Amino acid sequence: MLAPRPLNPAEKLDWLRLIRSENVGPVTFYQLLARYGSAGAALEALPEVARRGGRDRALTLFPKAAAERELMALDRAGARLVAWGEPGYPAALAAVDDAPPLLSIRGDAEILQRPAIAVVGARNASANGRRFARDMALQLGQRGLVVVSGLARGIDTAAHEGAMPTGTVAVLAGGIDSVYPEENRELHEAIAERGALVAEMPIGTVPQARHFPRRNRIISGCALGVLVVEAALRSGSLITARFALEQGREVFAVPGSPLDPRCRGTNDLIRRGAALTETAEDVVAQLGGQLAPLPAGRRTPLPEAAEPAPGGDSEVAAARRRVLERLSPTPVPVDELIRECQLTPALTLNILLELELAGRLERQAGNLVALL
Amino acid sequence: MLAPRPLNPAEKLDWLRLIRSENVGPVTFYQLLARYGSAGAALEALPEVARRGGRDRALTLFPKAAAERELMALDRAGARLVAWGEPGYPAALAAVDDAPPLLSIRGDAEILQRPAIAVVGARNASANGRRFARDMALQLGQRGLVVVSGLARGIDTAAHEGAMPTGTVAVLAGGIDSVYPEENRELHEAIAERGALVAEMPIGTVPQARHFPRRNRIISGCALGVLVVEAALRSGSLITARFALEQGREVFAVPGSPLDPRCRGTNDLIRRGAALTETAEDVVAQLGGQLAPLPAGRRTPLPEAAEPAPGGDSEVAAARRRVLERLSPTPVPVDELIRECQLTPALTLNILLELELAGRLERQAGNLVALL
Repeated sequence: MLAPRPLNPAEKLDWLRLIRSENVGPVTFYQLLARYGSAGAALEALPEVARRGGRDRALTLFPKAAAERELMALDRAGARLVAWGEPGYPAALAAVDDAPPLLSIRGDAEILQRPAIAVVGARNASANGRRFARDMALQLGQRGLVVVSGLARGIDTAAHEGAMPTGTVAVLAGGIDSVYPEENRELHEAIAERGALVAEMPIGTVPQARHFPRRNRIISGCALGVLVVEAALRSGSLITARFALEQGREVFAVPGSPLDPRCRGTNDLIRRGAALTETAEDVVAQLGGQLAPLPAGRRTPLPEAAEPAPGGDSEVAAARRRVLERLSPTPVPVDELIRECQLTPALTLNILLELELAGRLERQAGNLVALL
Repeated sequence: MLAPRPLNPAEKLDWLRLIRSENVGPVTFYQLLARYGSAGAALEALPEVARRGGRDRALTLFPKAAAERELMALDRAGARLVAWGEPGYPAALAAVDDAPPLLSIRGDAEILQRPAIAVVGARNASANGRRFARDMALQLGQRGLVVVSGLARGIDTAAHEGAMPTGTVAVLAGGIDSVYPEENRELHEAIAERGALVAEMPIGTVPQARHFPRRNRIISGCALGVLVVEAALRSGSLITARFALEQGREVFAVPGSPLDPRCRGTNDLIRRGAALTETAEDVVAQLGGQLAPLPAGRRTPLPEAAEPAPGGDSEVAAARRRVLERLSPTPVPVDELIRECQLTPALTLNILLELELAGRLERQAGNLVALL
């Protein structure tokens, strides 16, 4: 189990190099840390682990010089890098299993420790929807909740604006310096000054489509619950709501007319169990006792990954074949895989780790893995 | 247990006299029928039963001549009187405990035997709400459901109009000849010709405020479920929804914007468990197998009321005092009263029957009684 503590500068550089190395995502990161004791030791072992997973060409470690450049760029942008377990890391997010090991943060650190609610919704929101989001954010703020959103057009923008006097956090899909959409440049700067900006991607990253779902898990992760105001079916806001459920957070949805397609998504959430929400009081009543800050620490302990090869290389090779036979491009739950392969959890997790580092495996939300 | 069968003309006249007699409501009616075997025998016993309940002046029986005049007036209006248990009585309503023993009906008898859905809502509905109700009624009709409503302005009117081609039933708060509101005179006649009109009150009755809740229990009773389209908090449509729950029927509600007070009632219904409804398919899917007609018969058997005085007049008087001591203007459940008084159910029910006929007791929905 990873204990929360501040990192020294050398450790932080190792963390940054490890998370920026090829094929290393948050889940893998924490597994490597558990297995090798430190990011530095994991970096050393990485090429060999990837080779065992079947990689033919050498795995590229993220260069130390590049990591140093990233730290300097953050500094110039007025941002800082905060590691999981450090005091400045968002309190609620720390409890999420695939929380980013490192976050770029700009603005007020204290705000990230307060209980928060995410308010998200349609970019092409109605005037009523935007007004509702703005009023709601203001009222939630007055009741002591920080409002987290994604700085998108429509509902997100209205939510940030409404919560500006009381505290708001914008989670960016690109780097901490990426302004998106351009029309929100002023809002971006205002939040940096009066609230906080958060980004998982390296500074300088221009946001791309694939970054948005990853970003959405941070929005929900930073909050006790997600309130969805206007959302079409199959929209990004519903992805955020799904992450909230997986993270054990509340989902709130504002009902709307069946005649408006922008309400189909929120109505559907209510039908599937989200709390029907008309007033800030509805949110506060439901959150109830959770309004105290979350304790630091992960929701589930880190997997205890042991050294492989309990019985020699040929046995491990046989186990790897067994795992590979059961993997396909269709995602399967890791728990199911462990049961089906009849291997120890530690050995199975190690094999998956190797496959992932070799670039042959993809992790998906809900502890699913798929062959690439 | 009352067995469904057609009544002969003399019996029907007795039924009519009994239900129109002072202090006799549907629940009392069925209890008297069970206790005395026929409406004629109950009429004979009525004055003495009321006297035992503490009435000082004589109870007025509804005169035979008045009953005959009512039958003739119905005939002139093109309507007929149908008794509980007769083939023309609405199939679903027959299963309700306080179903009217007699209904005035005008129009298509067959339509009252088909599976039905009630569509009700705000009188001051929005244009969108009325359009939604009209389209929904049309689509529910196309899926084989008769649409029942209350002929009020707004949602009710739109629902009747939408279902006119496939079948609609209007339940009137006044007599079968009462047109209310006046602007719906044409619709009233159109439903009489192409659908069916139903009334519990005597022909010639002008609807008054107290008639509407009674009428609403018939609307829900005639249907497998009640769909509420736009309703403010504390509105009549919510009373209909409450009756539906008490009658074991489904409640459907259309969500709407929290900014519109006309949606507060429907949103609240959803929050308390009503099925969130956006399309006719939502209704049909939820009703599922119930679309076959209900079997004839009451949901709960009639109470078996026995002759009082198992131990002499003084013991009955003592029991009556015990019941009276526990009654007050605050309604109490009959079951609770039976437990608290430690009397037999039959004796307690008889005492309540006497008190009611004496005009000292009021029955309320949910098997509650209160002292007047």
